[in-house]
Formats: sequence, C-alpha cells, structure tokens
Amino acid sequence: MKLIEEANRQAVARILGAEPRLIDIVPAREALSGLKDQMILHAGPPITWDRMCGPMRGAVAGAIVFEGWADDLKSATKLAATGGVEFHPNHHFGAVGPMTGMTTVSMPLFVVENARFTNRAYCAINEGLGKVMRFGGNDESVLKRLTWLRNVFGPVLAKAIRARGGIELKSIIARGLSMGDEMHQRNLACSSIFLREIGPTLARTSTDNSVLADCFAFIAQNDQFFLNIAMAMGKAMTDPANGIRGSTIVTAMCRNGTDFGIRVSGLGDRWLTAPVEMPEGLYFAGYSEKDANPDMGDSAIVETVGLGGFAMAASPAVAGFIGAGAPSSA
Amino acid sequence: MKLIEEANRQAVARILGAEPRLIDIVPAREALSGLKDQMILHAGPPITWDRMCGPMRGAVAGAIVFEGWADDLKSATKLAATGGVEFHPNHHFGAVGPMTGMTTVSMPLFVVENARFTNRAYCAINEGLGKVMRFGGNDESVLKRLTWLRNVFGPVLAKAIRARGGIELKSIIARGLSMGDEMHQRNLACSSIFLREIGPTLARTSTDNSVLADCFAFIAQNDQFFLNIAMAMGKAMTDPANGIRGSTIVTAMCRNGTDFGIRVSGLGDRWLTAPVEMPEGLYFAGYSEKDANPDMGDSAIVETVGLGGFAMAASPAVAGFIGAGAPSSA
Repeated sequence: MKLIEEANRQAVARILGAEPRLIDIVPAREALSGLKDQMILHAGPPITWDRMCGPMRGAVAGAIVFEGWADDLKSATKLAATGGVEFHPNHHFGAVGPMTGMTTVSMPLFVVENARFTNRAYCAINEGLGKVMRFGGNDESVLKRLTWLRNVFGPVLAKAIRARGGIELKSIIARGLSMGDEMHQRNLACSSIFLREIGPTLARTSTDNSVLADCFAFIAQNDQFFLNIAMAMGKAMTDPANGIRGSTIVTAMCRNGTDFGIRVSGLGDRWLTAPVEMPEGLYFAGYSEKDANPDMGDSAIVETVGLGGFAMAASPAVAGFIGAGAPSSA
Repeated sequence: MKLIEEANRQAVARILGAEPRLIDIVPAREALSGLKDQMILHAGPPITWDRMCGPMRGAVAGAIVFEGWADDLKSATKLAATGGVEFHPNHHFGAVGPMTGMTTVSMPLFVVENARFTNRAYCAINEGLGKVMRFGGNDESVLKRLTWLRNVFGPVLAKAIRARGGIELKSIIARGLSMGDEMHQRNLACSSIFLREIGPTLARTSTDNSVLADCFAFIAQNDQFFLNIAMAMGKAMTDPANGIRGSTIVTAMCRNGTDFGIRVSGLGDRWLTAPVEMPEGLYFAGYSEKDANPDMGDSAIVETVGLGGFAMAASPAVAGFIGAGAPSSA
C-alpha cells in the first residue's frame, strides 16, 4: 500500500502542477504524429465497425465524405464496413473528441500545451448545437459547417491565438467555476470569458470584417464553445499522470457508444472496459429511451482531471486489480 | 393604509412590468432635454459648490476643461466656485451617473428605453479602472480617455447597438444574476455576456480593425463595463413607479459625497436627505479611512430597483412622513 500511496501522491501532484495553455489550432495531420489518410480517430476505447453504434457509424460515413475518400454516404459506409479505413481511439494519438469524437487529417484541432511537462493534447472545434457530426449527423449542412471550420474559422482563430502568444487556461477556468460552470454540461461563463480574452486580438489580426463577424457570432452563439478547449486541457493535464508504477489514479474515462473505457496510471496505455450505460434524462416530445443511444464521447476527460485532482486514489478494487497484474479487457 | 397598500401594489407592478432595452448611445446634449453649455449634472441630490466634497470638485474642474469652458484646472475651479456653471442632479434630467456622476453636453450616454412605458433613462459610459473622472480624477490621461469615448468608442458602439435593433436587457441580467453578478460591485458575467451579444454586430458595422480591436479591448478589460448600462436600466425601471399618490415605495437612492438622498413615489420629485455615511472597507497599504471620502454616486439605483421589486413598502416611518405631508429636506 505504501508504493500505491506514494505513486498516487506523485500522480496527483502532476495533475495539480499542470500549467495548461491554449497555444494554437492546426490541422490534425500536422498535429498528430502517425495520423494518415484513410484513418479515423473516434471517441472511447478501441472498437471495430461491426460493434459501432448507429451515431458512430453515421459520423464515420460523414467524415469519409468530408475527407473525400468516398463520393457519398452510401459508398462511404461500404468503404468503412469493408476495411477501407482504419479506426483508432483519439486517446492513442494524444487527442480527445466529444460524442462520436471524429478526428481526421484535415480537421483543425485546438492545441493545449501543459507548460510544466511540455506535453500537448488536441481536440477538434466544437460544432455548436443542432445537426452536428459529434451526434452522428452527416448531411450537407453538417459537412458544410465542418468545411467552414477547416477553411475559415480555424485559421482565423489560430492566427489570433498565436498573435496573443497563447492563452493561459487556469485563470479562465477559475473564474468560470465560480460562475456556475462545471466544464462539461455548462461552459457558458468560460465560453464568454474566452471570447473576451481573444476578442481584441481577433479583431486586430483579422482583415475581413464580414468573416470576423461570422467568427464572433459562431463563438457567441454557442454556450458550449469552451468544452472542447476544456477537453484538450483535461487530456494535457492527465497525460503526465499516466504510467506511474503502482498508481491507481484514473487518467482517462471515455465511451464509444458501445463500451466505457478507463485508463489507470499504473497500467499505462491499457484499457479497462465495460458495457456503457444508458444515461437517464429528459427527452424531446415524442421521443423516449428507445430512440436513444448509450453514453458516448471522450468528454469525461474533464471529470477525470477533477477526480484525479480531488480524490487521492481510485477504488480499492482497482488497486487490487493493478496489484494482481490482471490483463485489461482491451 | 388601504390607499398605501394599493398605491404600492401599483408601483411594484410597474417596476416588475418594465421591459428595458438598450437602444442607443447619444451625446448628452441630444439626449437630455434642457441640458446646455455651462451646466454640470452630478450624482446624488442637489448640492452647491461650497458643500461639495473634494472628489466632486475635482471632477467638476475636469469636466469644465473637457468641455472647453476653461483652459486649465485652476481657472476651471475658479469658474465653478464663482457661479460660472450651473449644478443639477442627474436625476433631474432623467439620467444617472456612478460616483461623482459627471454628465455634460458632449458626453456620450447609454439610452435605455422601458418599452412598456416608453420612458427613457441615460447614463454615461463606464471609464474602466484606475484614474478616472468618476473618482475625481481630472488629469490629462482622464480627459484623453473621455475624449476617445466621445469621439471613437461611443459612436462605434452606438452604430452596432442601432444596427442590432437594440438589446433586450432582462435576459442578460437573468443569466448574470445566476452567475454571481449583483449588478453593482460585480458585473463580470453581464459585461461578458454583453460583449458576446454585441460582438458580432460590432465586427460587422465597424470598418477599421484597429479601432474595432481597441473597442473590444476596452469592453473586455473592464469587469464593471455593464454597471452603467444596469444603472440606466434601473432608472428606466423605477421612474414609472414614481409619483403615485400614497405610495411609500422608494424610487431613487443616491449620494453626492456629502448628502444621501432618496425619493419616495408618493412625494414625486422631492428629495429626502441626510448626511451620507462613510463605508467601512479595506484600504490600499498606507491609506486609511482618514484619506477616504463618504459614499458617492447614483449607482444605488440598482439597489433601488431591487428594493422596489422585492420589498412591498418602505418603512412605516416614511409612510407616516408622507401621510403627514411633511416638507422634504431639499
């Protein structure tokens, strides 16, 4: 137990010692070492096409058309079902993604650097509400927005972030938490404060007022805009705490719509998985749990960093599991 | 008592029924009927030069130089002390102002319309922190900022507010209150949400990116930016509740640094005054209460609207005072 206690103290110290800064937005192909064409990164632990839920398959088909690897959704689905693309978890590439969590070569990713440990983590830009790829949406409106994020919004915001020399995230989050945000379902304060922080530089570095207005509106109309930044931050903060021998601290929690997976520091990159649960919630009129999909996304990284920071250790069961050196389920 | 109860019910209904919208920013000379050159509006109930506190006198001298009625602070002070300018409370012109509350002809004022009763109220633009006229500051840096607010910031923001068709304020304030704002000492959330609301239109209607960036930065760097909008809103909400026969609802509370004044609905435009108190607070190192000035400003209008909305009546003493038809102290 002494080994575990010391290991956990070290893991928690690394999480608390993090100095996360948003430093850039870059295309995934430049950001993620090893990411290539015909590769699709998804949320949660590893999964094959045959076990993917409907929304995940829908998003995969959309991502394939978005990247131009197929001409339409039908041939995209066929390509995916016949081994024409590789699937990997975002977590295997230092990234995270909300809900279906699609990440492919041309998508712009937030870059959060943990200045204390010089590691980096990545997350795509939040698409806003309505029909979006993270919920499995894949029609023309969804792909059109992703194209605008890639060609216009990403480069414009990236220019401002770089010109400002990055943005220190802890001070934004400290204010946001005191204003009711919890970094996952509510990011109203942090989204607003982020816009305040970047707004002046965005105005200074942008040359086209119509484009600038669209970019402002895109951030301003999405109370959850900050979520994806918070997710990259969560990953940048928990990664240095992973791989400490004997530590029972959970360093990742995520779901792919079929499985729930966790990583535990002492087990390094292994996944421990279990069937994912169906959240209990309110539904729009005319819908019920029968229409819903079990939980999904890498976004639980924001709770992971909270758990790591505030709880000193995972459950005794997990500690025992590590002690026994049992194999992970994935 | 039945007359009073019914009158108060009506006054409170008017306050609660308000529909405040920020609709414009215009120079005070256009906004305030009867305002002329060589007139200075100040915070609080009426006061003459000889009874004014130091910060108020400093601000008056600065305002005179700002308007070009004297060439320097020394001759401005002489002008003010020898009857060369008229002093009136902001409240007599439908306006409010924080701290010293200077309002003169060329200053840009927020215009808040109460759509329910079609009345309007006005307040100058918050100058930010540091050396500012509202605290009695009157040096070159103070006047330079006021000149920029008048010539650049005011017109740019006004254009955006008009292009957007005004901004409904209750929805901003409802969110701000749930995020810890109380509209007086803390306006962080509302200031941030206001920038989100106006940002896209500000970008669309502004043609000079450098100016736009300065305007964004000015709003973004001031957690109290929204205070002056909230003050104009408070006045626009309480004014329709004033002048109801028999009502004991307080419709204004304000201080000029020497006197504290209130207005009570049933007494119409009369002022009830008393010596203003010295707030108890923390001081910067090396300073104490001896260096401080008693309380000052029209900003208590934000508490007035809260009192009017939530308490059904002022104290029995005030009710008795109205019943007796006693003369006011000012």
